[in-house]
Amino acid sequence: MIHKNIGMAYSLPAVRHVTKIEITIKMNKLINSFLLLVACYGYAQAQDDTTIKTIFDEALSHGKSYEMLEHLTRKVGPRLSGSPGAAAAVEWSRHVMEGYGFDSVWLQPVMVPHWVRGQQEVGRILNSKKMGTVPVNICALGGSIGTGPSGLAGQMVEVKSFDELKQLGEKNVKGKIIFFNRPMDPTKLNTFTAYSGAVDQRGGGASEAAKYGASGVIVRSMGSNITDYPHTGGMRYAPNVAQIPAVAISTRHAELLSKLLKEDKDLQFYMETHCEIFPDAPSFNVIGEIRGGEYKDEIIVVSGHLDSWDLAEGAHDDGAGCVQSIEALRIFKLMGYKPKRTIRAVMYMNEENGLRGGTKYAEMAAKNKEKHIAAIESDRGGFTPRGFTMTADDAVKKKVQGWQPLFRPYDVWDFTQEGGGADIGPLANQGVALFGFLPDSQRYFDYHHNSQDTFDKVSRRELELGAASMSALIYMIDKYGLK
Amino acid sequence: MIHKNIGMAYSLPAVRHVTKIEITIKMNKLINSFLLLVACYGYAQAQDDTTIKTIFDEALSHGKSYEMLEHLTRKVGPRLSGSPGAAAAVEWSRHVMEGYGFDSVWLQPVMVPHWVRGQQEVGRILNSKKMGTVPVNICALGGSIGTGPSGLAGQMVEVKSFDELKQLGEKNVKGKIIFFNRPMDPTKLNTFTAYSGAVDQRGGGASEAAKYGASGVIVRSMGSNITDYPHTGGMRYAPNVAQIPAVAISTRHAELLSKLLKEDKDLQFYMETHCEIFPDAPSFNVIGEIRGGEYKDEIIVVSGHLDSWDLAEGAHDDGAGCVQSIEALRIFKLMGYKPKRTIRAVMYMNEENGLRGGTKYAEMAAKNKEKHIAAIESDRGGFTPRGFTMTADDAVKKKVQGWQPLFRPYDVWDFTQEGGGADIGPLANQGVALFGFLPDSQRYFDYHHNSQDTFDKVSRRELELGAASMSALIYMIDKYGLK
Repeated sequence: MIHKNIGMAYSLPAVRHVTKIEITIKMNKLINSFLLLVACYGYAQAQDDTTIKTIFDEALSHGKSYEMLEHLTRKVGPRLSGSPGAAAAVEWSRHVMEGYGFDSVWLQPVMVPHWVRGQQEVGRILNSKKMGTVPVNICALGGSIGTGPSGLAGQMVEVKSFDELKQLGEKNVKGKIIFFNRPMDPTKLNTFTAYSGAVDQRGGGASEAAKYGASGVIVRSMGSNITDYPHTGGMRYAPNVAQIPAVAISTRHAELLSKLLKEDKDLQFYMETHCEIFPDAPSFNVIGEIRGGEYKDEIIVVSGHLDSWDLAEGAHDDGAGCVQSIEALRIFKLMGYKPKRTIRAVMYMNEENGLRGGTKYAEMAAKNKEKHIAAIESDRGGFTPRGFTMTADDAVKKKVQGWQPLFRPYDVWDFTQEGGGADIGPLANQGVALFGFLPDSQRYFDYHHNSQDTFDKVSRRELELGAASMSALIYMIDKYGLK
Repeated sequence: MIHKNIGMAYSLPAVRHVTKIEITIKMNKLINSFLLLVACYGYAQAQDDTTIKTIFDEALSHGKSYEMLEHLTRKVGPRLSGSPGAAAAVEWSRHVMEGYGFDSVWLQPVMVPHWVRGQQEVGRILNSKKMGTVPVNICALGGSIGTGPSGLAGQMVEVKSFDELKQLGEKNVKGKIIFFNRPMDPTKLNTFTAYSGAVDQRGGGASEAAKYGASGVIVRSMGSNITDYPHTGGMRYAPNVAQIPAVAISTRHAELLSKLLKEDKDLQFYMETHCEIFPDAPSFNVIGEIRGGEYKDEIIVVSGHLDSWDLAEGAHDDGAGCVQSIEALRIFKLMGYKPKRTIRAVMYMNEENGLRGGTKYAEMAAKNKEKHIAAIESDRGGFTPRGFTMTADDAVKKKVQGWQPLFRPYDVWDFTQEGGGADIGPLANQGVALFGFLPDSQRYFDYHHNSQDTFDKVSRRELELGAASMSALIYMIDKYGLK
């Protein structure tokens, strides 16, 4: 029923009657040409409508994305760059794409950072007047140095921002543990906006605090809700600043800590983390492609990242994006669709703590003089699709927005937002149009980078709808190009 | 950022320059009046914009719907009509609404069917050549008679439709167990459409089969995916037809059963169910209201159903709808909003297996000559909101659709679909405009009526966004009416 309304966007303009005979004849010819054009256009639209329905029907009836994800999450498991899991994921995805009969499947070597968490962290409030010693849930931030077995103890200072830290200055900060406690703003509808407004504390908090002589940092987890699970995530040390240990604390314990600090300014904290930074390790981007016909030198990328944080199975971040990318190509193979352009599924390595895979891919594309026309990335979880973000010139955006009526029957409607993706970002300066798969954002930061990002949190239908949406967008770009 | 675009729908038309002085003066007066009008309209819109933002901010920052739901699901638990859980839920919801200081809270007596499942069901395939005896996951359908401890054994016949059953006729059906195995169509984007296309088997399958002498029925669960959990749900016996036991089988075991039946036509099945039907029991709708000012005799209802199936906690079905309805009023109280009209939160009893509560409410509304202008129902789960369905005359629909730009910043955009809700349905013939809260449908039939409909399946933000959407719609109806 919903499906039938699609033609409405292409209604014919009214044609006025003409009086003089010669003009009438000429006009009739023009009108006939016009009608023919409209008919052809209508036919093309109907054909696209049918093809896109075939794509969605296949994904929803016999889709393989969910089975693939089950294997990647439950069998392969956590897969941080440099880990055995990451190596297994590389082999698994090569094997899967070969199994689906893609024209070529290959590994693209890339050196990646190799950070290891080690044994589980210990976090304790030591001397609460009311509660005594209170164990709290913490985890080391990715990239942080460890405290080692002797741990780190110290007095805490809570701040909400780098400005506040600056105002406190060295005299109030030196030797202390800085507790960054600015929450994600719950009133932001899009949780990624709330995340952007808080994540500086995680990424740069340690070095900001170290500038004033802090001994360590505790960062409130980047989570939408009050829960018990600390969220890890990447942090970086600024050059020429002392490197100090950095941990995330669960939002529930951040609230507790803040409350106890208000009651007791001399509260002491103990943290023990065992993480280590090893030399860079060899790894790979995994690439599978279906070669194009007419314009085989033009490449369309669809992608996710294969690495995940080590605390869970990386189901939404970003197992979903990987299996959706493979599924998009599998559906084409199954339909017997012969693309005009070359379509590549790319599983990047090391999005989480270095972006080495995305950087390497763009570098090699430039070096090999490959002509990429579009890159799609899925890295916002396997939730119900809403649309695609775009980073492209206005003409491209307008063209793609014109396809919206074809996606609307599948509740994929939002083509208005700017954006691409971290891994495809480095392709931008080669003039590649970037597209970010845009699903519903409400649940993402319940699971992001914590122990809850497991297979059971993924809805089969939501995952499949995402894969189909991506496949449909590739189909349209392949058929019509972007110019 | 999204929020600022809302004014665009109200741009001013261009005003042309006029030459003659008299006309100029008159025109200027007209223009001034017009501009004043537009300014007032703009001001009203800005005010609505602000109020709706306040509603969403409150729900997302300090909302109570999630806490309420936790209590209703985890403390009260399953609450089928006539059960101790249902009685506890009545008391709980009265207590909660009184606690929030609503102007009146009362119970509306209603007699309800009283069906009890009894001890857990047993289902077995008895004589598979390949697999021997195979235990399968079944549950009795609500309203079914039980087999009793001696159980029911028999040969099976699989059908996909009532037509197929009719064609088989008495000679092939008599004494056998009919296995209804038509799945929900996965290619339907809206899972409720897929449900509608399959649920006749559950509701009427037993009596259809009994017409041809069947001894019992097994119905494929109404689920979107292949899982291990049987979904219960209401069934009814037709008058003057033998009453035979009816069970649901998990979709995974339905697939297995079908496969084994293809290999072995003489497959025997054993089912044992212990359900019993007791005399109707006394229960209640629970009603809380905030009285209106200017038009206090005009009533706006916002509602969910308090009863749930007995296999789980009734989190999405329909704990969510209940707590969202209470939350909608709580937010008004908290904001100090004084409604023009009377706003009622109604927790209906017995939606699942009788609709006695909804029927009684409409009956009493008519009897008491109450003037209801609108009724909103939330009974599609506590998922991310998309919009509202409507059953109303065209002028009302058009008016409400005109409010869409106010909801759009919250990704609530779909006001196009026909529909209301089961419990508010009986109000339709009193000329009440009906609104169904319309959330994303993809996950609903993973949990619907099975053991998985538990608190942990509900996203806090999704639930809160639904409550805020409902509250915002009530605000608009209250402020502007529907005529």
